[in-house]
Amino acid sequence: MFEKVLIANRGEIALRIHRACQEMGIQTVAVHSTADAEAMHVRLADEAVCIGPPAPKDSYLNKAAILTAATLTGADAIHPGVGFLSENAAFAEMVEEHGIAFIGPSPEHIRMMGDKIEAKEAARRLGIPCVPGSDGAVETDAEALRIAEEVGFPLIIKAASGGGGRGMKVAYSIDEVKTALSICRTEAKAAFGDDAVYIERYLAKPRHIEVQLLGDGQGNCIHLGERDCSIQRRHQKVIEEAPSPALNATQRRRIGETVTNAMKELGYRSAGTIEFLYEDGEFFFIEMNTRLQVEHPISEMVCSIDLVREQIRIAAGAQLDIRQEDVKIQGHAIECRITAEDPDSFLPTPGRITDYHAPGGLGVRVDSQLYSGYAVPPFYDSLVSKLVVHGQNRNECLMRLRRSLSEYVIGGIKTTIPLHQRIIAEKRFIDGDYDIHWLEKWMGLKK
Amino acid sequence: MFEKVLIANRGEIALRIHRACQEMGIQTVAVHSTADAEAMHVRLADEAVCIGPPAPKDSYLNKAAILTAATLTGADAIHPGVGFLSENAAFAEMVEEHGIAFIGPSPEHIRMMGDKIEAKEAARRLGIPCVPGSDGAVETDAEALRIAEEVGFPLIIKAASGGGGRGMKVAYSIDEVKTALSICRTEAKAAFGDDAVYIERYLAKPRHIEVQLLGDGQGNCIHLGERDCSIQRRHQKVIEEAPSPALNATQRRRIGETVTNAMKELGYRSAGTIEFLYEDGEFFFIEMNTRLQVEHPISEMVCSIDLVREQIRIAAGAQLDIRQEDVKIQGHAIECRITAEDPDSFLPTPGRITDYHAPGGLGVRVDSQLYSGYAVPPFYDSLVSKLVVHGQNRNECLMRLRRSLSEYVIGGIKTTIPLHQRIIAEKRFIDGDYDIHWLEKWMGLKK
Repeated sequence: MFEKVLIANRGEIALRIHRACQEMGIQTVAVHSTADAEAMHVRLADEAVCIGPPAPKDSYLNKAAILTAATLTGADAIHPGVGFLSENAAFAEMVEEHGIAFIGPSPEHIRMMGDKIEAKEAARRLGIPCVPGSDGAVETDAEALRIAEEVGFPLIIKAASGGGGRGMKVAYSIDEVKTALSICRTEAKAAFGDDAVYIERYLAKPRHIEVQLLGDGQGNCIHLGERDCSIQRRHQKVIEEAPSPALNATQRRRIGETVTNAMKELGYRSAGTIEFLYEDGEFFFIEMNTRLQVEHPISEMVCSIDLVREQIRIAAGAQLDIRQEDVKIQGHAIECRITAEDPDSFLPTPGRITDYHAPGGLGVRVDSQLYSGYAVPPFYDSLVSKLVVHGQNRNECLMRLRRSLSEYVIGGIKTTIPLHQRIIAEKRFIDGDYDIHWLEKWMGLKK
Repeated sequence: MFEKVLIANRGEIALRIHRACQEMGIQTVAVHSTADAEAMHVRLADEAVCIGPPAPKDSYLNKAAILTAATLTGADAIHPGVGFLSENAAFAEMVEEHGIAFIGPSPEHIRMMGDKIEAKEAARRLGIPCVPGSDGAVETDAEALRIAEEVGFPLIIKAASGGGGRGMKVAYSIDEVKTALSICRTEAKAAFGDDAVYIERYLAKPRHIEVQLLGDGQGNCIHLGERDCSIQRRHQKVIEEAPSPALNATQRRRIGETVTNAMKELGYRSAGTIEFLYEDGEFFFIEMNTRLQVEHPISEMVCSIDLVREQIRIAAGAQLDIRQEDVKIQGHAIECRITAEDPDSFLPTPGRITDYHAPGGLGVRVDSQLYSGYAVPPFYDSLVSKLVVHGQNRNECLMRLRRSLSEYVIGGIKTTIPLHQRIIAEKRFIDGDYDIHWLEKWMGLKK
């Protein structure tokens, strides 16, 4: 096992990784920008190295500085966390070239899944369901009609050079396709000087559902069920839950098996997540994240598996010793991403925390870098706490979430706690009846 | 279900009960002494009533004041918590006479188990194993020898009027019994003026193991496995864990069945605990606690059952809807009782908390009334926090405990956190190889 792990990140995720290391008896090295000298992960780590000025490109994205810190401190592994260099294949390669273990997947897999076109091709090849549609532009109307029959309805015709909602038309029947095609081509020609269009299945109200995977690169791979992350604002997840209120056990098992088989075939190593749009019983591949996700704790809570510990074990060469049949989804978990933002305007609210008190009690987990007296710097992601609750069922979980949000004290700055309180009081959320557009629509209505 | 519950207690247990109520959508009424006006449970409750001056007899033991508060606020139930009036049968009766539900067992059962002699008789009658011995004083040597054969070895001969270790003699064989009897009788006569002696099985290194029960008084009763509370100082539990490192699955099932059948026969209602001394595979009844225990969270963590919620449901007339086969012991949990005491001298350390930061992350639960700025009053029990950790196995749990204790910041007063850190670093504790005398012996050695 590793003796010393360098954590190439900041905030709550750096703290999360530090905790896993400590529980494994592994020393930690924190790296930090000059703005983060007083950060929690720096205060708790066994060693800390300042790697540059506040701007991420000069510190947390500064590969050379991080590698120097690892070499100087004698770290035998680097955990990249979430964001920053966590999906940077070149960094993973550099780390390995320095004889240091990279706690994550192989650089090839990071690279493959980082390229959206290559990722989609890989997904298709590996049997992961993708959105049906034309492969590229559709030349003639006859071809379009043939593809439309294959794709099924509703479908959307999009200008190949399009964007911003222009040159797009939804068709609900074969008759509508002809009209839509002609309108689309005309609009596309006028707007982009190119009348090429392509066809895709149209998802009106999809949910975002993702499957958590764990592979050891030695032939073993399991899934930890799914997470429903449909509560989003501007493509940013706000609240996540596991399991998804939309899936039944058979659907869960099937999609889990599909992605597990795919990742076995790929020989995937470490934690990873395959993200899908989901509608009417069907899954459509969005992308694969070859790293830990912010919302990983809800899977940990329902499966009683420490994902970071498994990542570390696997990176040290251990085989996965959890079999699929040992993974039992127990109860329900919900995570609220609490950010240092005004809950109405969403403007960032950096500043000093004058008072801090996290909720406690049964089924409550808090992953937060905040403490009383700490100043939230203005330079980074605004995530300041993940409040995760676990209960025997979804209703218990909701009540526990309500209770814990009401106990949470973060003084000195505005946070999105009031927004979370409003969301979880909404009938559509309580009923689990939401899609990826719901939050934004509801926020529009409420304004 | 109840609309409003009055919590007749203070400190972390009042907070614990408030949280359960909130998660059930029940309003809470806090009662408090003048010393506790700023207490966490008072700040969080929906309503608060001051019931008297600091001395417990004038406030938290003041039955009339508490009943008046309940009547004035329209509470339809009272939860007595732990300690104070929680095992006061007369109070339970008064509450019920006021048409208010008492969240606990029937007054008869409280009374029965509160009387040590009656409790032991009941235990025997109900098939709960007790320490074998003579029923009362042994008259002749011949009788003593006959009883000694029945009781088995080692046994202890004790002066009936004795105490303080005098007039006690351990015998390891039948030959030793005769000598011991004569010595004992002589000593007893000299010391207490009475040469009557009695005989009991002698337990040299027992563990304290207790079984958590839940009955609905309607014929249903389950057990939630056991807790090992052998880490004690002056008969006060310091660290508890579940399951016990000393029991195997068969022993667990057997003792669980024994006490469950006994409580079914009794028609026991609410949560209750049967405490045993355990040695060499045998259990010996100590007493039954007809209330919640301080260490209940470890059972909650391994069973995923909210004991306070079940108490409330049952008091409201609901049937127990958890079957024994649904109770699965998952992983391991350990609780540290953190007190406001000097970790070396054990002198109480009331005072103002200048800085407070509870540990977080996976598998960590904190039940504490502390917050930054709060003053721990000098009038009450010194328990200020229960740090409870859960892990997939005992080793994971120990590492997590070590990690969380090191994160815990309680500034302004001394606490027993350093003592807990020392205990959990000891080989005997790590190996689970301890009995009820171990902590005191070890502390003696260490001084």
